[in-house]
Amino acid sequence: MNTEEHLLLVVSAAGGEAGSSGGRLIDADPGQPHLSVLDVAATRGDGIFETISLGAGHPQAVELHLDRFERSARMLDLPAPDRALWRDAVLTIAARLAAHDEAWVKIVLTRGIEGHPDPTGWAYGTVSPAFRRERTEGIDVVLLDRGLRSDVAATSPWLLAGAKTLSYAINRAAAREAQRRGADDVVFVSSDGLLLEGPTATLVLRTGDRLRTPPDALGILPGTTQADLFTAAHLWGLEAVVEPLTPADLAEADAAWLVSSVRHAAPIRSVDGVARAIDAPLTAAMNGFLRARRS
Amino acid sequence: MNTEEHLLLVVSAAGGEAGSSGGRLIDADPGQPHLSVLDVAATRGDGIFETISLGAGHPQAVELHLDRFERSARMLDLPAPDRALWRDAVLTIAARLAAHDEAWVKIVLTRGIEGHPDPTGWAYGTVSPAFRRERTEGIDVVLLDRGLRSDVAATSPWLLAGAKTLSYAINRAAAREAQRRGADDVVFVSSDGLLLEGPTATLVLRTGDRLRTPPDALGILPGTTQADLFTAAHLWGLEAVVEPLTPADLAEADAAWLVSSVRHAAPIRSVDGVARAIDAPLTAAMNGFLRARRS
Repeated sequence: MNTEEHLLLVVSAAGGEAGSSGGRLIDADPGQPHLSVLDVAATRGDGIFETISLGAGHPQAVELHLDRFERSARMLDLPAPDRALWRDAVLTIAARLAAHDEAWVKIVLTRGIEGHPDPTGWAYGTVSPAFRRERTEGIDVVLLDRGLRSDVAATSPWLLAGAKTLSYAINRAAAREAQRRGADDVVFVSSDGLLLEGPTATLVLRTGDRLRTPPDALGILPGTTQADLFTAAHLWGLEAVVEPLTPADLAEADAAWLVSSVRHAAPIRSVDGVARAIDAPLTAAMNGFLRARRS
Repeated sequence: MNTEEHLLLVVSAAGGEAGSSGGRLIDADPGQPHLSVLDVAATRGDGIFETISLGAGHPQAVELHLDRFERSARMLDLPAPDRALWRDAVLTIAARLAAHDEAWVKIVLTRGIEGHPDPTGWAYGTVSPAFRRERTEGIDVVLLDRGLRSDVAATSPWLLAGAKTLSYAINRAAAREAQRRGADDVVFVSSDGLLLEGPTATLVLRTGDRLRTPPDALGILPGTTQADLFTAAHLWGLEAVVEPLTPADLAEADAAWLVSSVRHAAPIRSVDGVARAIDAPLTAAMNGFLRARRS
């Protein structure tokens, strides 16, 4: 298992006000319990998180992750995170893992103990596993119904579509369903037939000279890794396009990936058991770019 | 706040095998932390729970709750709970709260610490708050889109519709939306227009001499309180009917309730701001029956 772990408890200033001072980071032993059984993280999945990759001590896409953390907090009516404090937590753990080419840190903010006003926060970091197989040979995915229409983020914000919450039981159940079907991962499809995202990744297609991904208005997470890749698309002679996509677009694409913070770009080599082409040179270029990021 | 709290850690036998011996209950201090920040209860909402009312030391509908606990475990591919051990945990806490007319105990089973094989379990009990207003004057509810079709339990089991999981962020967000609209609670509606359930309660209607509730095949929890009420319907000269229901059925019903383990039967006095009749004598009879249960 992992040999090196770091944990910081992130204690907001009273009231959790944005920009307030007085928050602090407390070193803690990851091997010891730190959460109450009454914390709504554990009883209600009522909180938010981000997982940020660390490249030789440098957090990658950290400002995009902090943007999304703040966005999730707003969607859940949580106190606005003290951005400077959370950035400090990420940087502190990044520095401690600087000896490793690839590591990650997860930041978590919960509504705290039921009936009490203070949120709970922590940052946990460790060394990344190896993803050589997934990044080079590729992954097998299945398409699974997400059950929701593509317009629920607009019509029904209480469904929290597009918030990165701790309520991930469905994401985990979908991953188990993929395994039952002999696959590695999932691409969710809306009930009205649009491609959405993976349980922990963003979908990216290449069709000719276009790099394509679905818009977050469909009720999906704005992808931080995808966003960084799209800023670099021109390096590979590609145009970056955000637009609704269908399973037919996936079938007809020249290449497809699930991209995420820790695994980076994993080429999709089959969909529902049907083999599809991967673009090995572009995949290698993408992963080289993602690994080399120093912010 | 609550003055009396009890906590037992529920440690399954190795492997968590159903019917295996060797599980044990460990007394713990509810004021101390007992969970790792790596427990998937806290990071993924990946576990299940039940909340069981205690009437003067007697767990109510405990076998129905244990049935549902086992059903949720199956739906999440969790190890089968050791039923005798969990019943023992409930009875132990019930005995400690026997001085109170109304108390409750929550039992929780999680998949445990990520990458480790052992589940995490606990049972927490305390005294119930007063629900006089909700049980007599009634509650204001709003209808909110649940986003899912009424057939997803059959078509898409990975959506876990009808499992009582720890991933309740949506249930909590819906409750906040109700508050924003000046209401107390929510009745979810499927995307194809059928009444479902509340975020933490079952919907029951009276139409003439029929007591009606939606079938759990719609992807809702089988209600334990509703099941007990339905076995008693004949006491009040009513026929118990399980059938799909629409918002029009709710509008036309002679009376409507959200029923749940701890609050019992809360009459619905308005829907989306439109006042509706409550049946005070039948509500009182139902709550008298529910409070008096000794199993």
